[in-house]
Amino acid sequence: MITRGEHEAARARAAELIRAAGILLTESEARSIEAADFGLGRLEREGAQILTVVQTERISVKVLVLFPGQTEPEHWHPRVGNDPGKEETVRVASGTLFFYREGEGARDDASIPEGKRDVYTCRREVVMHPGDQITLPPGEKHWFQARAEPVVLYSFSTVARDVLDGFTDPAIERVTKVGEG
Amino acid sequence: MITRGEHEAARARAAELIRAAGILLTESEARSIEAADFGLGRLEREGAQILTVVQTERISVKVLVLFPGQTEPEHWHPRVGNDPGKEETVRVASGTLFFYREGEGARDDASIPEGKRDVYTCRREVVMHPGDQITLPPGEKHWFQARAEPVVLYSFSTVARDVLDGFTDPAIERVTKVGEG
Repeated sequence: MITRGEHEAARARAAELIRAAGILLTESEARSIEAADFGLGRLEREGAQILTVVQTERISVKVLVLFPGQTEPEHWHPRVGNDPGKEETVRVASGTLFFYREGEGARDDASIPEGKRDVYTCRREVVMHPGDQITLPPGEKHWFQARAEPVVLYSFSTVARDVLDGFTDPAIERVTKVGEG
Repeated sequence: MITRGEHEAARARAAELIRAAGILLTESEARSIEAADFGLGRLEREGAQILTVVQTERISVKVLVLFPGQTEPEHWHPRVGNDPGKEETVRVASGTLFFYREGEGARDDASIPEGKRDVYTCRREVVMHPGDQITLPPGEKHWFQARAEPVVLYSFSTVARDVLDGFTDPAIERVTKVGEG
């Protein structure tokens, strides 16, 4: 759970970073930004700010903001009924994104949130700069992180059913609970 | 047909407008912009500049640029096999877009390209400003236009098979022919 005050502060900070990246954001869109703590209660370390720009029955366009040091937990997009699962293209708009997908790599473990080595299993590192993009097939585990600087990225995907995403960390609840405070 | 010189000039002008709208564009993306004259040979009046950002088997993200007075001809996205047809969300990034979809409206005919009244049949006008967006179902005819100022817009859609689009104007060929010159 995060407090309403934390949620508002994260939302305002994310809106400012989206605009600083040159991305047009209406006032009502700014108010709709979701700060997601994945039920872990430590938004600054494991979480993301998410703006949904387009959401139809067929496609989804989102802008994600990661604050410095913030990590989107490892997850994947499973098959749902006749749908083969969400295909997602991630494109960096500003900052340097450290993206991890299935496989081995040269990365050390320093960036993994403390005590979470077992639930961040992907080790194939891709360092992404503005304009870089990756298309991820359904089912492939991934996680990503901002380090010294904030990151703004696009997510273009087939229909998003985020509440059905799989997460490696069993402590995760996808629906953010916002309390008073 | 348009000449290579015209194509290069339109591409450079479009790249500048995309960047002026705050949209990140890599050098290789700038070189990939297509100036489409729809086979009509008068790009400045009927045509569009098109950057394909993402194109997978399932989704498509494009940035379109219209120069002042330029008109994207009336067309629709038909059913293709098991696919119900392309669903498209248009979002304005800069400028004022005059968008026409099926139905009646208050618009006069002044904006229709000369002698083309029969092949621009939609009369329901939507004036769109930056941040405005419309999701268009498959099969619905539409056309759109920039007037005094250039327009940069996003097109987020299910998979694009542009060569299969239907056009009201029988003179149209979707594949642009670029000649020497």
